[in-house]
Amino acid sequence: MSDQAIINEVGLRDGLQNQPVTVDTDTKAQLARLLVDAGMRYLEPVSFVSPKAIPQMADAAALTPLLPHDEGLHYTALVPNLKGYQLARDAGYPTVALVLSTTDTFNQRNLNMSLEQAAQSCEAIIAAAKEDGIATRTYIAGSFACPYDGPMPVTLPQKLAARMFAAGSDEVAIADTIGAGNPQQMKDIMAPLIREFGAEKFYVHLHDTRGLAAAMAWAAADLGVRRFDASVGGLGGCPFAPGATGNMATEDLVYLLESAGLKTGVDVERLRAAVALAQQATQRPLGGRILSWMESQENQGKTPCLW
Amino acid sequence: MSDQAIINEVGLRDGLQNQPVTVDTDTKAQLARLLVDAGMRYLEPVSFVSPKAIPQMADAAALTPLLPHDEGLHYTALVPNLKGYQLARDAGYPTVALVLSTTDTFNQRNLNMSLEQAAQSCEAIIAAAKEDGIATRTYIAGSFACPYDGPMPVTLPQKLAARMFAAGSDEVAIADTIGAGNPQQMKDIMAPLIREFGAEKFYVHLHDTRGLAAAMAWAAADLGVRRFDASVGGLGGCPFAPGATGNMATEDLVYLLESAGLKTGVDVERLRAAVALAQQATQRPLGGRILSWMESQENQGKTPCLW
Repeated sequence: MSDQAIINEVGLRDGLQNQPVTVDTDTKAQLARLLVDAGMRYLEPVSFVSPKAIPQMADAAALTPLLPHDEGLHYTALVPNLKGYQLARDAGYPTVALVLSTTDTFNQRNLNMSLEQAAQSCEAIIAAAKEDGIATRTYIAGSFACPYDGPMPVTLPQKLAARMFAAGSDEVAIADTIGAGNPQQMKDIMAPLIREFGAEKFYVHLHDTRGLAAAMAWAAADLGVRRFDASVGGLGGCPFAPGATGNMATEDLVYLLESAGLKTGVDVERLRAAVALAQQATQRPLGGRILSWMESQENQGKTPCLW
Repeated sequence: MSDQAIINEVGLRDGLQNQPVTVDTDTKAQLARLLVDAGMRYLEPVSFVSPKAIPQMADAAALTPLLPHDEGLHYTALVPNLKGYQLARDAGYPTVALVLSTTDTFNQRNLNMSLEQAAQSCEAIIAAAKEDGIATRTYIAGSFACPYDGPMPVTLPQKLAARMFAAGSDEVAIADTIGAGNPQQMKDIMAPLIREFGAEKFYVHLHDTRGLAAAMAWAAADLGVRRFDASVGGLGGCPFAPGATGNMATEDLVYLLESAGLKTGVDVERLRAAVALAQQATQRPLGGRILSWMESQENQGKTPCLW
């Protein structure tokens, strides 16, 4: 089993899309630079979505040329529909992320489609991307629980993942969109999928809402999953709900994986500049648990020793 | 594999022993009552240690008769040496917890003994307890890392655990005393021990210093471990270091285990009264991650639904 882990930084997309503050394009580009400087090689910086629905993503096309274009960087754009896919393709993205939620209600709220319509829309995007030589990663949103309909049976994300692979999706991301899952559920969902399709086909996307993201990430890593989403400083979540944290913080994921012997290529110490900028740009306190600990050590005049 | 988990509440002992505030005996008894009311059945409320060394534990003998004595409650007293053991026996404790650290330095600082002297002291206590019909649980402190000598090879806690079982210890607790371990290390330490001695012989004692306690608890539970220490509200750790959290919070452990399908018998909602009292008594903010989320839900006018 490989000891190389891939972290896809989604702070600029999933992290910023729910903020009351719209971060300007130059600051986003600067944040991407700091993330790349810290060792991030996979970033999902934009969503090609209606600017009416998500004004924070309205600068997707304008941001793209301002992003770092060092060799070895891998960018993904999220696309909610075929129109978004075409915009992402025209902007030159080599990979697109698609979203299929587990219930009718969730798909209606997200995409104004039923589950079946959303699945067919994903199939159409995947087919178009295949023709254009663009890679696809399909997110099964609400794989653990739907924000409207509650906990999901493990067979539901499994069936949708299989359907998306059958349609030609290169990767599938199993997403705990509202941070309501648990590590046993992770095991129950992922173990059969990994046996059937191989661990290298899967991403895991976690939110730390109830404090179990690290346990769930470990449960996935222990099964061989090596691809994870994360968000710098834990950016994301509802800014009006104290304690309602966002995506799993990139620095916490790096610390978890590296301490367990996996290689991420990311330097936690250097990530701190990115966390600081994200904090300043969104005007809210950010930072994963490992940063709290590092700060507490420094406040005592000690140099935090991570490994 | 059993779905029944045991949580040993160590907040009154490990949680309070490092606080700058000495909590009075009546408040400790009241806290024990609230914990029992929330469903806790295993408590480690005292340490029979020199009052000069740890003044916060000086009321061990006075507290004991004030504790709830409902049927089905299991109390443990920590004993650093044979003298402490005799005091615990005389106070009527059916189980004693012993401490053996992984290095000479750590044993010197804790007990003023070398590693070999501390191991022999534990063997003498275990022998005395066997004669008296008192159960023993030996903590291998610093199993993951020593605060003075750094990370430990997994074979060291394994050897010390085997030696303590050979001496007759009924249980062994593998302790990440400074919260510096990781879930891979948990697996590497525990899997061979469980194969040799059986999962039911082990406790796991975690501190959430660097944010990995839930991941490590899950790694242990996934191997079949069903006995855990935890501390109400995450009480413990250094009160002068913001972010330097203490023991894994009882409420977070309950949420982790119950969400993963194990039974703890503990009600998170009812634990909140105990957290509130612990907070008031120690004059510091407490509460695990699940409580932050519950509060954020309530602040939005929602009723938090845990399961």
